[in-house]
Amino acid sequence: MNGFMGKLLVVDLTNGQISTLPLDEGYARQFVGGAGLACRYLYERVDRRTDPLGPENPLMFMTGPLVGTEAPLCGRYVVCARSPLTGLWGESNSGGRFGPYLRFAGYDGILVTGKAPYPVYLSIWNGQAELKDARSLWGKDTYETQVAIRDELQRAQLSIACIGPAGENLVKYAAVMNDWGRAAGRTGMGAVMGSKNLKAIAVGGDFRVPLADEARFKAAAQAASEEIKADVKAQFLAAGGTASTIDTTMWIGDVPSKYFTEALWEPVAHLSGATMAETILVGKRACYRCVIGCGRVTSVTGKYAKEKIDGPEYETVVALGSLILSDDLPAVAYANHLCNAYGLDTISAGVTIAFAYYLYDRGILTTSDTNGLELKWGDIEAALTLLEQIAQRKGFGAVLAEGSRYLGRKYGVEDWAVQVNGLEVPMHEPRAFTGMALVYATSPRGACHTQGDMFLVDLGAPVPELDIQIGNRLESSEEKALMTARVMNWRTLYGSLVMCVFGNPQASNILAMLNGVTGWDLQLEDLLLLGERAFNLKRLFNGKLGLTAENDRLPKLLLQPLPSDVVETQVPDMGVLLPAYYRVRGWDSQTGMPTHAKLQELGLEDLAFS
Amino acid sequence: MNGFMGKLLVVDLTNGQISTLPLDEGYARQFVGGAGLACRYLYERVDRRTDPLGPENPLMFMTGPLVGTEAPLCGRYVVCARSPLTGLWGESNSGGRFGPYLRFAGYDGILVTGKAPYPVYLSIWNGQAELKDARSLWGKDTYETQVAIRDELQRAQLSIACIGPAGENLVKYAAVMNDWGRAAGRTGMGAVMGSKNLKAIAVGGDFRVPLADEARFKAAAQAASEEIKADVKAQFLAAGGTASTIDTTMWIGDVPSKYFTEALWEPVAHLSGATMAETILVGKRACYRCVIGCGRVTSVTGKYAKEKIDGPEYETVVALGSLILSDDLPAVAYANHLCNAYGLDTISAGVTIAFAYYLYDRGILTTSDTNGLELKWGDIEAALTLLEQIAQRKGFGAVLAEGSRYLGRKYGVEDWAVQVNGLEVPMHEPRAFTGMALVYATSPRGACHTQGDMFLVDLGAPVPELDIQIGNRLESSEEKALMTARVMNWRTLYGSLVMCVFGNPQASNILAMLNGVTGWDLQLEDLLLLGERAFNLKRLFNGKLGLTAENDRLPKLLLQPLPSDVVETQVPDMGVLLPAYYRVRGWDSQTGMPTHAKLQELGLEDLAFS
Repeated sequence: MNGFMGKLLVVDLTNGQISTLPLDEGYARQFVGGAGLACRYLYERVDRRTDPLGPENPLMFMTGPLVGTEAPLCGRYVVCARSPLTGLWGESNSGGRFGPYLRFAGYDGILVTGKAPYPVYLSIWNGQAELKDARSLWGKDTYETQVAIRDELQRAQLSIACIGPAGENLVKYAAVMNDWGRAAGRTGMGAVMGSKNLKAIAVGGDFRVPLADEARFKAAAQAASEEIKADVKAQFLAAGGTASTIDTTMWIGDVPSKYFTEALWEPVAHLSGATMAETILVGKRACYRCVIGCGRVTSVTGKYAKEKIDGPEYETVVALGSLILSDDLPAVAYANHLCNAYGLDTISAGVTIAFAYYLYDRGILTTSDTNGLELKWGDIEAALTLLEQIAQRKGFGAVLAEGSRYLGRKYGVEDWAVQVNGLEVPMHEPRAFTGMALVYATSPRGACHTQGDMFLVDLGAPVPELDIQIGNRLESSEEKALMTARVMNWRTLYGSLVMCVFGNPQASNILAMLNGVTGWDLQLEDLLLLGERAFNLKRLFNGKLGLTAENDRLPKLLLQPLPSDVVETQVPDMGVLLPAYYRVRGWDSQTGMPTHAKLQELGLEDLAFS
Repeated sequence: MNGFMGKLLVVDLTNGQISTLPLDEGYARQFVGGAGLACRYLYERVDRRTDPLGPENPLMFMTGPLVGTEAPLCGRYVVCARSPLTGLWGESNSGGRFGPYLRFAGYDGILVTGKAPYPVYLSIWNGQAELKDARSLWGKDTYETQVAIRDELQRAQLSIACIGPAGENLVKYAAVMNDWGRAAGRTGMGAVMGSKNLKAIAVGGDFRVPLADEARFKAAAQAASEEIKADVKAQFLAAGGTASTIDTTMWIGDVPSKYFTEALWEPVAHLSGATMAETILVGKRACYRCVIGCGRVTSVTGKYAKEKIDGPEYETVVALGSLILSDDLPAVAYANHLCNAYGLDTISAGVTIAFAYYLYDRGILTTSDTNGLELKWGDIEAALTLLEQIAQRKGFGAVLAEGSRYLGRKYGVEDWAVQVNGLEVPMHEPRAFTGMALVYATSPRGACHTQGDMFLVDLGAPVPELDIQIGNRLESSEEKALMTARVMNWRTLYGSLVMCVFGNPQASNILAMLNGVTGWDLQLEDLLLLGERAFNLKRLFNGKLGLTAENDRLPKLLLQPLPSDVVETQVPDMGVLLPAYYRVRGWDSQTGMPTHAKLQELGLEDLAFS
């Protein structure tokens, strides 16, 4: 089989055993790669007894068939495990070079089990893997760690994924950081690494990905690249970064502020790509084979001086800025840097901190809870202090390190926590795009915006070949449920490829790239099916861990009308949307799981749990 | 015939004769209404000997079949005449209430000829028209004029269209202002009013527009309203105004700066809807039966204090702001107010002033030309002074009052003037949207952005029912020429209806509204044909006045690459675009006029000039 070198590296950290597992082609044909394929491997290795932070929780780093090829925007990898933040399916993908370099090192993925007796890191170079002592790295931040490993390994073409203090300290939303400031941020995969005493993985080599039909593949990759370059949305990202459109999308209520209680906060424009370009921007970054290059590099002087900061991105400026009503861009960029260096997910960190601000404002929290910290709207200083406390699990940070759901529970207001199944809601308002309500409520990793970008589709980015249509962003209807499910299936396929959601060539070119690299003979109509299958596998994974239909819900705060006479928003009607979505999905309304008929249709009947 | 009361008011100012002309239903069926119908009337009344500022130039105020009905976004009127700025077809439409109120007064349009012996204004109330002495109004600004006429007429439901000092002083780009700050700005229709000693027209009454098929009409109007309300682009306009997306579209080079010589000037974000909302916004305005309400009302304190300003809109903040590198929003708003009060087109005024800045920067102009004024990039003070001088034709303003083409000619650099056929280019870069290059080069009134909005279509606002497709914004191709022609035909129909280009319901609902009000039995495929016919009639009008294929060109400055390593732009390849466009149009490449076959197809063969 081409398109995969065909092997996984298997590392048992407990005893240091390193072995190789041939990639199961049957699995790959069913689940493609990336998160879908990882879920297939983990499905049989995880159950309710698996402690997310115990040695028994298997951790996978996966690439996909297009990763490391000339396919545009496929220079990614994904980290998967049972999430310590949600207790459910955990996955987070990241760009940079780590994914391609892992394939160049000779492996399609890594399966890590056990726990090392002391901190180690894994080095994989040209098919040779070894565990190395990382005791001297423990406590170092992610930048120091990458510098130290580079110094030690002395390889020019190296990519490192690692954790910082947050991962070591098992902060529930600790990120895996790679290629300096790229983050696999969500669902706490950094904490899983920390729990295993695995500080880092360094990869590189000169293997190349074999192509089953080189001519077909290259023509499609070239066509896809040209299409992406011509896509005006990609051009916004290229020129202005992910925050380039924030000052526009705020007018329709897409940008949360004041802990999701306001529809419009105009100063958010001070956190825009334009303000960034005018003030702190010093450079740009593109991931491997990316024809966009949305990454920003900034530099801050003065009070929050930092010579080089990776970011901030859209999610970050909102989560660490407008959610607490701060429009101080240098401070927000600095907060971003703290997250990068400590290894924290900026979304969960920002939302959890903003929740604390909200509770403080409502009198639920006082300075006696916060170790004397005043949490006043607009004051980002306290947030900066909290970020450090969280990473170090000191002071009030020890509470916040457990995430929003825990914070709510601790103070008897779990309902108010803006999270779904433990994962904090990202920065696209479901009251601005009802499709996002379904995405958040039913995404396998909790509130996730990348496996279903209805906020983009309803703004005009449909996939006509797959009958994905622009809809009314505020509508709660059967049609909305149908479109949302389609979009989620489509983006789940992206998560299997692993491809960046900013790349939107014709589906036929993605198909030709996939067939060209693998030698498969898929048809256009197979693509959504592949996504749907992986999506349902993750659903089964969660079902096995106890998830039911009860879990498919939006937090209470997001079901209240947003006050604004300027911006039109709408509380999604979950009573309409969810039943329609269940029908479209072929899910049983009692169990919340795929019906037997649906499992048969997807070829998943053997994986049903009892 | 329904949908029209069926009569025009005909006013000969020279002798004060007022009469009524039944509306020609044959004309209406061919040209619908608005600018298309006005062109049909003027076609036989204008030739090369017609001095645009002479008594012989007929001036028409026209409504359309949907104006004054419940059709959304059709509360407009258009003013047409031979343009003193371009010497060619002149038209400019405006919202507010004047159009509907003119129909309520009993007329579908007004044809004004001659010249009054002294300043007069025309009052039309419930079918009664009279000319009234306006000598006491001469010299008053447009706000003072409207107040004085309201005081005199003592009617509650009144709408007034008028000129300010700029129109009186025959500034070539003087606007007609109505309903306080709404402007029919382009092509100098205000100067034509001024040349006729016609200071204002006041209209009102309680006639209502008859509906041929009320049920059909109302259902379609309701559906169209709902569609517009659900359109996310309309929502941006509603919440943030026309400048709501400026901070996003600048990333693709759509926003001109420094007199069209730079692709990106990030401080333009300081002129955005967001900055406006944060700083000077005090209210919003909607035109008659508008479900959007993009109009802004602002208030400025301090140096540029003005309690109430109508605007600024997108075109204005760019033309009077970023074109001279000023991001001083209060000053730009104040400049807007000066234009409103003097009655000046903000686009032509801004572009002409920016041309002077450009020439000053290049040393072509010195303080000896400008009466001592220094014109330095970023210094808006000089621009404010020039606006007053232009309106009063004082100092250097007497030169600028003639427009960009004249300014260029006077200093031997006509090539550098960013105008087409005398009309200054508006604020959408043809190097960001190659379709706009064709629109500007071939629009019947010179560089016009409203009769062909390829900048919106290529951003994702197509009309699938009419096979108008999203394209690559930077491409020069046959397909681009075809789409551009279709879009121009479509928007020309809007100009006939007269409907605002911000309203984009399904074409089938526009069709149903039009059939419902008129009793016609048009089919969907007739709509583009109606647009094409009116477009070609205007072409013939211009041809009769001397326009040839030689006139279809972009100014030199817009055919030079824009310097930017951030923003992707492309010089349109006119060598590809124009011949393709001629083919699509059925135009003769030598004469630049419709071929006989095309004229026959459009039923215009009788109007061919020899």
